[in-house]
Amino acid sequence: MDKVYKKIEIVGVSSKSFEDAVTSAIEKASKTLHGLAWFEVVEQHGRISEDKIAEFQAVVKVAFKLDH
Amino acid sequence: MDKVYKKIEIVGVSSKSFEDAVTSAIEKASKTLHGLAWFEVVEQHGRISEDKIAEFQAVVKVAFKLDH
Amino acid sequence: MDKVYKKIEIVGVSSKSFEDAVTSAIEKASKTLHGLAWFEVVEQHGRISEDKIAEFQAVVKVAFKLDH
Amino acid sequence: MDKVYKKIEIVGVSSKSFEDAVTSAIEKASKTLHGLAWFEVVEQHGRISEDKIAEFQAVVKVAFKLDH
Amino acid sequence: MDKVYKKIEIVGVSSKSFEDAVTSAIEKASKTLHGLAWFEVVEQHGRISEDKIAEFQAVVKVAFKLDH
Amino acid sequence: MDKVYKKIEIVGVSSKSFEDAVTSAIEKASKTLHGLAWFEVVEQHGRISEDKIAEFQAVVKVAFKLDH
Amino acid sequence: MDKVYKKIEIVGVSSKSFEDAVTSAIEKASKTLHGLAWFEVVEQHGRISEDKIAEFQAVVKVAFKLDH
Amino acid sequence: MDKVYKKIEIVGVSSKSFEDAVTSAIEKASKTLHGLAWFEVVEQHGRISEDKIAEFQAVVKVAFKLDH
Amino acid sequence: MDKVYKKIEIVGVSSKSFEDAVTSAIEKASKTLHGLAWFEVVEQHGRISEDKIAEFQAVVKVAFKLDH
Amino acid sequence: MDKVYKKIEIVGVSSKSFEDAVTSAIEKASKTLHGLAWFEVVEQHGRISEDKIAEFQAVVKVAFKLDH
Amino acid sequence: MDKVYKKIEIVGVSSKSFEDAVTSAIEKASKTLHGLAWFEVVEQHGRISEDKIAEFQAVVKVAFKLDH
Amino acid sequence: MDKVYKKIEIVGVSSKSFEDAVTSAIEKASKTLHGLAWFEVVEQHGRISEDKIAEFQAVVKVAFKLDH
Repeated sequence: MDKVYKKIEIVGVSSKSFEDAVTSAIEKASKTLHGLAWFEVVEQHGRISEDKIAEFQAVVKVAFKLDH
Repeated sequence: MDKVYKKIEIVGVSSKSFEDAVTSAIEKASKTLHGLAWFEVVEQHGRISEDKIAEFQAVVKVAFKLDH
Repeated sequence: MDKVYKKIEIVGVSSKSFEDAVTSAIEKASKTLHGLAWFEVVEQHGRISEDKIAEFQAVVKVAFKLDH
Repeated sequence: MDKVYKKIEIVGVSSKSFEDAVTSAIEKASKTLHGLAWFEVVEQHGRISEDKIAEFQAVVKVAFKLDH
Repeated sequence: MDKVYKKIEIVGVSSKSFEDAVTSAIEKASKTLHGLAWFEVVEQHGRISEDKIAEFQAVVKVAFKLDH
Repeated sequence: MDKVYKKIEIVGVSSKSFEDAVTSAIEKASKTLHGLAWFEVVEQHGRISEDKIAEFQAVVKVAFKLDH
Repeated sequence: MDKVYKKIEIVGVSSKSFEDAVTSAIEKASKTLHGLAWFEVVEQHGRISEDKIAEFQAVVKVAFKLDH
Repeated sequence: MDKVYKKIEIVGVSSKSFEDAVTSAIEKASKTLHGLAWFEVVEQHGRISEDKIAEFQAVVKVAFKLDH
Repeated sequence: MDKVYKKIEIVGVSSKSFEDAVTSAIEKASKTLHGLAWFEVVEQHGRISEDKIAEFQAVVKVAFKLDH
Repeated sequence: MDKVYKKIEIVGVSSKSFEDAVTSAIEKASKTLHGLAWFEVVEQHGRISEDKIAEFQAVVKVAFKLDH
Repeated sequence: MDKVYKKIEIVGVSSKSFEDAVTSAIEKASKTLHGLAWFEVVEQHGRISEDKIAEFQAVVKVAFKLDH
Repeated sequence: MDKVYKKIEIVGVSSKSFEDAVTSAIEKASKTLHGLAWFEVVEQHGRISEDKIAEFQAVVKVAFKLDH
């Protein structure tokens, strides 16, 4: 039977790295959603404080399967 | 009175055609949402298996009216 | 001698399919313009009514040759 | 601790102005969501009726913090 | 019966505001065209003179219904 | 073991429909390549002749797995 | 008094160069329109025949002032 | 003699409106630069605090003439 | 019978001009490919050395017909 | 003498990180191509399995020099 | 040791050609900046006066090396 | 009081990783500018030498507050 997915847009924020921010976004999404299937990184930016990167921010689209 | 809509992003998957994938996405959205008003096709891709199109995938934004 | 074309943007609307909407846009353009040469589909969206697709809307650029 | 935000896409509609449409979208979002943090205007369009602007429509992404 | 619209691109210029520039573009279009249906703001820029905004320029696509 | 894919860009041309043009592009690709995995429709345009659509042209990216 | 411009999309074709194609598009536009004010090159492509560039094609938006 | 301009990217922030944010960006630029000539609005976003728009942020490219 | 084309991406480099870079890309492509049909200029950049343009670089998509 | 490069599009897949996926794509390309010169990351996405990132996928354009 | 570049956006204006406008932008940049390394043409437009191209305007990003 | 920021475009180059390239760009910017506030990664590319990544290049927009 044909499938249907929904994509939501999540912004992960990490003090360590972009990949940590992506992981953090997906981990958060997994707490309330089932059937996470793929993700797409759509933006990478961050906050600077006292000349250092204080936050890595990754805007991530996360897709999950909708139940029938 | 002024109206407000919400747009969600749905990926319909069909073994038949892109239009079937779009229809499938909207049908699924209609099961849990009221007041569907319009849709926008934002991407068209698919999966190939044994040299044939196995899945038509249509990424569709669906807008629906929020109740006051 | 060198040629010049003009491109106009037409929105075809059909209750049947996107291809019907494209065809409808081109047919309409052909009633007042000569020398239609090519077309480009730039957007595909539609209207939903009572949970069904009521209109397929295809935004199409149509190019035609300008006479010298 | 690291934060996570979700972005949703809302279309505010106003008979007055684009800024009123943006405000209307955010006000509506605030009724069901906590922790609204920022917004991005992604499209500005509208409906014309009898040669006058009948609706200003602002497509707005609204971001809010997800609770831990 | 199926409908067809044409979209034209108009640049409204105002010394007051972007919304006045948009209104001005639509008002001008309405003088020679019937059946204006919707508009889309595609660019917002302007001219500066003596350190002040001398012109607000709004590039607007205006759609109108073609008669059958 | 980690996988690597290559994406190529193919333009399918059909006198019937866009979906036939997509199918035609993939069928052609499958004659010389193994492991076709997915495709993405990136443009849809066509040629008009005597006021009718003479060619549906679908620009398609086709991805296939590279052997190790 | 506030001004209004219209932008049209013209494709100039030249056997010599892109700049000749742009010039050709503007020259053609000037034959039927008054008050040409500016142009924007939006695409540059061409046709190849027997391994040589047979046509330089420049897609150009041309803006002209609408009379009051 | 031929002219040369430089474009810089400024983010105006206002608690009142987007147009105030644009004006504020240009006013600031005019304090250190001569010959401001035009501007382009490239992004419109803002900060929300306690369910109200606390900041309108307009990202503006400002062009000014370089002296010979 | 229906046709299929392949598009490849070539970067021509010239010390003279962008058009020479485009020509150079197409000439190179023609040495190993048959049936070149059209090209699209997708980027124009270059290298500067001692304050002079040392290289004009044109990124060009070249399409050619695949044999049946 | 003037140079010509070709750009191909490769999708590297890694279970570790995006940078590993990029490296993997380039390593694979280097097995059959000489004169690799530069690369561009054009998309970053991945597959999720059981709430964890199972694959980091990096779409990479790789440019290499064509021999004369 | 690792390098850092800065990119600035310059608009060259020429009455002759786009390439002259690009050259003019780079020449101007070289008067106040050291270590110019590459450039990218990002827009090509112009002004029309009395049905002739009065100005070719090339928007160019110019990159130069920052000293350590 | 209302704030104004300026965004500049910096290209960090690192032999180690993209994140090192981003860090390097920001560190460099901080040497001459005060009030760095946020950054946006706009492009990721690099140079290949002898089949290995020799340089990771991150194009980064860096925003800083302008003093009143």
